[in-house]
Amino acid sequence: MIIDGKKMAEEIKNSLKDEVSKIGKKIRLAVIQVGKNPVTEKFLEQKKLFGGAVGIDVRMYELPENVSTNQLREKLAEIVHIKENTGVIIQLPLPKQINPHTKLFGVGVNTQYILDGIIPEKDPDMLSSKSIGLFSSGRSKILPPIVGAIKYIFDRNNVDVKGKQVTVIGAGKLVGKPVATWLINQGAAVTIIDENTIDPTLHTMGADILISGVGEPNLITADMIKDGVIAIDCGTSEANGKVVGDLDPKIADKASLFTPVPGGVGPLTVAMLFKNLVELAKKS
Amino acid sequence: MIIDGKKMAEEIKNSLKDEVSKIGKKIRLAVIQVGKNPVTEKFLEQKKLFGGAVGIDVRMYELPENVSTNQLREKLAEIVHIKENTGVIIQLPLPKQINPHTKLFGVGVNTQYILDGIIPEKDPDMLSSKSIGLFSSGRSKILPPIVGAIKYIFDRNNVDVKGKQVTVIGAGKLVGKPVATWLINQGAAVTIIDENTIDPTLHTMGADILISGVGEPNLITADMIKDGVIAIDCGTSEANGKVVGDLDPKIADKASLFTPVPGGVGPLTVAMLFKNLVELAKKS
Repeated sequence: MIIDGKKMAEEIKNSLKDEVSKIGKKIRLAVIQVGKNPVTEKFLEQKKLFGGAVGIDVRMYELPENVSTNQLREKLAEIVHIKENTGVIIQLPLPKQINPHTKLFGVGVNTQYILDGIIPEKDPDMLSSKSIGLFSSGRSKILPPIVGAIKYIFDRNNVDVKGKQVTVIGAGKLVGKPVATWLINQGAAVTIIDENTIDPTLHTMGADILISGVGEPNLITADMIKDGVIAIDCGTSEANGKVVGDLDPKIADKASLFTPVPGGVGPLTVAMLFKNLVELAKKS
Repeated sequence: MIIDGKKMAEEIKNSLKDEVSKIGKKIRLAVIQVGKNPVTEKFLEQKKLFGGAVGIDVRMYELPENVSTNQLREKLAEIVHIKENTGVIIQLPLPKQINPHTKLFGVGVNTQYILDGIIPEKDPDMLSSKSIGLFSSGRSKILPPIVGAIKYIFDRNNVDVKGKQVTVIGAGKLVGKPVATWLINQGAAVTIIDENTIDPTLHTMGADILISGVGEPNLITADMIKDGVIAIDCGTSEANGKVVGDLDPKIADKASLFTPVPGGVGPLTVAMLFKNLVELAKKS
């Protein structure tokens, strides 16, 4: 079965719209964007549209491309401090002078320093060290959006991860780590592999559930997985001007559950970001 | 080769002793003990001895067995606030009214709430959510003691975990989770299994490195591992009045590196706790 993430995101959108109007106070998502990036422009657009549809104000804070780490952290502190900003997110990746990393969405130490300027009470993306710690130790009421998205898909399809062999491909901060943390807490047998792993096929082939978040076009092919696998694609990259995932779309034929890119986990993750924001608004 | 953890701990002890005398300021470890527990009494004794040997004051704060969660958290806040306490640790497990858990060292939500009363600047055990988050996101200068102990053994024996298949048995907060987090950050292919895993032997057999932290006598037997494995035993339990580990001692014959219980990772972990405390003292 191919998951329709767009449709699921619509369901959440409708229920959030009701909830927002019931709460009756203004909710605002502050989005910090440093410079311009054609790849992330698309993601921003989705957030603006979703916010608009559920009655949440999305306020852009645009900072110049050449902002220094210290300037950005100071500016962030101001933005976090503004009472009207219910939640604050930073559009990643940050420019090279702050995040001298090779991979598009790599999160280096300086980026983490910036992210740590967001207090958990205003952190719907859950990327600050404090939010990560609360989540990891079971004390967070909300989930990282990518985890919320996967959980939603699993709940809807009666997938119980307990005891299952789950292979997570990529150990990044946006996908691999939070997803692995959640799976471990759920009692799954979790294997995390990355570019250093000598025989990845050994681990993809053994997986009941496969979750990939690398960002490399068609990294996983149909011959690397077993029949009936649950295949969740959280990777996003561009190939020949098109947005593609980590999983070869042919995997859909072998998988019992398959999330495509685009239109799978992506729209659901945006929805979960706003769901988190509404939760934070209720408590503020 | 069988690792002599006691000898390694002595090395660290000697270097810390020098360092403490050079720092020239008083360093104090506050230990909060709730009620009495014969199993943990032994661990406490080791900490007192180690502290005494390196010139660090170990101050006991003994609280009654029936203390409530709120009382304990308040008392902890006081103890953390005392300037003379360089670091604060809580002897686990906490009594049933706070930690209604089945497993000896299980850390439930209330225990985590208590642990979260320790600020990272005074948290040499690194069990608070904030410390966990900083460690997970690469922003901590110190390592959880169990991770420091394993890293020390690996460094000493030129074990490079990058790309290696590492199986971690048990997903607890004291061993499995911090160890897995560290391994993932080091680029190992990490599998975390627990009591829900259907075929554990599949994962123990495939491991280049095996790290166990469950607390079940002889959980892993020699027929479950491959020749030449690096076997690290972080489990502690009692069987027939003796302290034993998770690994059958016969594994030593098949392993290229083996840490026994007692006398392996345990003494090193105590040493690393004090090493962390000295690091915190330098910054305070």
